[in-house]
Amino acid sequence: MEIFHTAEVLSRDEIAHVQSRRLARTVKRAAKSPFYKARLAQTGVDPDSITSVDDISRLPLTTKDDLRESYPFGMLADEHRELVRLHASSGTTGSPTVVYHTDNDLRTWADLMARCMFMAGIRKDDVFQNMAGYGLFTGGLGIHYGAERLGCLTIPAGAGNTARQLKLIRDFNVTALHIIPSYALYLAGVVAEQGMDPRDLPPRIALIGAEPHSEEARRRIEEMLGLKAFNSYGLSEMNGPGVAFECEHQDGMHLWEDSYIAEILNPETLEPVAEGEVGELVMTTLTREAMPLLRYRTRDLTRFIPGECACGRTHRRIDRIAGRADDMLIIKGVNIYPMQIEQVLLAVPEVAQNYQIVLHREGFIDQLTVRVEIKEEFFVEDMRALGSIQKRIAGLLRNELLVTPRIELVEAKSLPTSDGKASRVVDMRDKQG
Amino acid sequence: MEIFHTAEVLSRDEIAHVQSRRLARTVKRAAKSPFYKARLAQTGVDPDSITSVDDISRLPLTTKDDLRESYPFGMLADEHRELVRLHASSGTTGSPTVVYHTDNDLRTWADLMARCMFMAGIRKDDVFQNMAGYGLFTGGLGIHYGAERLGCLTIPAGAGNTARQLKLIRDFNVTALHIIPSYALYLAGVVAEQGMDPRDLPPRIALIGAEPHSEEARRRIEEMLGLKAFNSYGLSEMNGPGVAFECEHQDGMHLWEDSYIAEILNPETLEPVAEGEVGELVMTTLTREAMPLLRYRTRDLTRFIPGECACGRTHRRIDRIAGRADDMLIIKGVNIYPMQIEQVLLAVPEVAQNYQIVLHREGFIDQLTVRVEIKEEFFVEDMRALGSIQKRIAGLLRNELLVTPRIELVEAKSLPTSDGKASRVVDMRDKQG
Ligand SMILES: [Zn+2]
Ligand SMILES: [Zn+2]
Repeated sequence: MEIFHTAEVLSRDEIAHVQSRRLARTVKRAAKSPFYKARLAQTGVDPDSITSVDDISRLPLTTKDDLRESYPFGMLADEHRELVRLHASSGTTGSPTVVYHTDNDLRTWADLMARCMFMAGIRKDDVFQNMAGYGLFTGGLGIHYGAERLGCLTIPAGAGNTARQLKLIRDFNVTALHIIPSYALYLAGVVAEQGMDPRDLPPRIALIGAEPHSEEARRRIEEMLGLKAFNSYGLSEMNGPGVAFECEHQDGMHLWEDSYIAEILNPETLEPVAEGEVGELVMTTLTREAMPLLRYRTRDLTRFIPGECACGRTHRRIDRIAGRADDMLIIKGVNIYPMQIEQVLLAVPEVAQNYQIVLHREGFIDQLTVRVEIKEEFFVEDMRALGSIQKRIAGLLRNELLVTPRIELVEAKSLPTSDGKASRVVDMRDKQG
Repeated sequence: MEIFHTAEVLSRDEIAHVQSRRLARTVKRAAKSPFYKARLAQTGVDPDSITSVDDISRLPLTTKDDLRESYPFGMLADEHRELVRLHASSGTTGSPTVVYHTDNDLRTWADLMARCMFMAGIRKDDVFQNMAGYGLFTGGLGIHYGAERLGCLTIPAGAGNTARQLKLIRDFNVTALHIIPSYALYLAGVVAEQGMDPRDLPPRIALIGAEPHSEEARRRIEEMLGLKAFNSYGLSEMNGPGVAFECEHQDGMHLWEDSYIAEILNPETLEPVAEGEVGELVMTTLTREAMPLLRYRTRDLTRFIPGECACGRTHRRIDRIAGRADDMLIIKGVNIYPMQIEQVLLAVPEVAQNYQIVLHREGFIDQLTVRVEIKEEFFVEDMRALGSIQKRIAGLLRNELLVTPRIELVEAKSLPTSDGKASRVVDMRDKQG
């Protein structure tokens, strides 16, 4: 096995040792920020008393609201003059969140990102097209610096403009790319419409992320584009992309434990879940200088995959994100994640790319309707055939969700799509009387 | 005087020496590309015979069409595996043009850009907001890498979204920024409309470029925003931004002659113009590895400013771009550049931000109409007052252009504007019978 950095194969003892040393340093550094200085004092934690990774549970949790409330400078643990970058969320609701970086922070981030790309099989000789949006959004520059660190010929294509994306892919013989999952399916559809086989496009590797998607969506991307698609995990509070990534075995994402301490907590009790159970991912930065974060609640639900990975890397794997703690829909008292619905739908061969989840209320009863696009060849006049597909989908969803949804079959390409992320849940319940 | 790099104060002899050495190397390297290999053979130039900057006139010229025709790989003088970046034009008309970079190319580009920013007074402690568009366009990443090289806290804001731009400027106390000239005037207008004085915004330095603009436009930007605005020159074929920049004396832009050989040629005869006269800027790269360009015709019209600069830098200065060889309007047999019109208009105190140049044909006679926005306080009911402004503007333009235009005065903010570059010439002559 080729690795990008020897840190990827440290023994578990060595990882614990690195984590302990870096956690102690991180807490001392965090305590220089106005926010953590106050928070640590408030919770009675002496920064000097944190010496081991086992002390992590004594540290206070940090939430997105904490970030918002300490905007713009409250989380800053660094003298202004060492900062070289900031990224900020668009902040359409309330204050934006901002993350600052020193030169070392950017270097570490690029190294982690390069590690991820290398793990997915990308090498110096690849031509890499980055379709993540550049600018304040962390995807574009984050992935860009990783690709450059790896030494790929990098095309900073940015998001959107499908005709240009395809022209670049073809003209420069692009062998690897970063793309949002729903856009990958859209792109494949555009090529098919041009009368060409999307599998003939040169890319052999796609990095997919920035949007929740199911295993079925990944398999479809792989089949339609004739490549291997690798899941990635990142969030702007932890730099952006480069936090966790799949290796060639595509069985969970190795999370870089020399740079982050990851915990999985029950989002209600805030206690660790049992080994292998799903809970909220909580993360602590270990290498960030400008703005360390302690036990940050990501709101993302996942689990640690038990056991060792066949690739030989020792960093634990997290499972694909099962949803956001905030995305959970409660329907008739049952917890449902949109990802469960996608997973069922995309396993049905007659189902096309798009679907929509609509929640409304009838009297006092929540009603779940799922609108499903059916591939052209199956969307025929024969009402009986359609009725049978409808029943099959309803049955599969009931088994998965334990709630019986209404199924509406619609023609392919009749549901709203966007060039960027798909928005697939329409909750009408708050808007009703 | 503080300088970023000692190369800025080499003696003229030393510059000639550096240029000769690097030109010889560049021609040998260029000859590895399919395009130059053929072109040099065709024109009977033995690469080894080019040993001095004085040999430059023996080299063939390169045009934008050459770039287009050799798309995508014809200009490549480097093994694929050393490339780390490409930028491509949008190519809305015909083939795009593409520029490739090695790691060294990117480093040199960032150094040149950092030199420019330092020369304009930007230091490590500045907070720098980059409003140039990121991605394939060279402005965003080019300026970004320069700011990072300088060590500024850099905000990768990108283009557009005025409300967010202003929020970032205020919240992070931005002291320096890069902005398109017409957008700077628009931004100042937005702040004034909010009932605030744009001069109270924190920035003290604005880098302006990417759009032709007059000295009057610069003075307006400086007055309205209460800062110093520095002209920049660059073009994607020569990397992008970072080719030439103003120093604190704001009297022409020092062009980095250790990285480029600049010539000013008569665009008709292709012979050098007399010292200090206006002609087409023709440039040769001296440090580019992946894709050297020999005697590239920029189509930009400028002149060398005679004499030495008071700042002590020895690199020659080019004057602000007087127009594009392609932008020249021929009206009633007279050559006119839109920039001449802007310069006259913006020196008139009653004139607001916007104007429009409309060309149409009456019979066989070209007619030039200039629509001019008048500031609110002057746009009064008094027809005599308006008539006098109209006459004054017509007289000033006739003196400058030697053609008598029709002048239409319109209310402030009644002409089309865009968030990005202004498009100010409407040529109806081709669309008429
Ligand atoms: Zn693995
Ligand atoms: Zn000077």
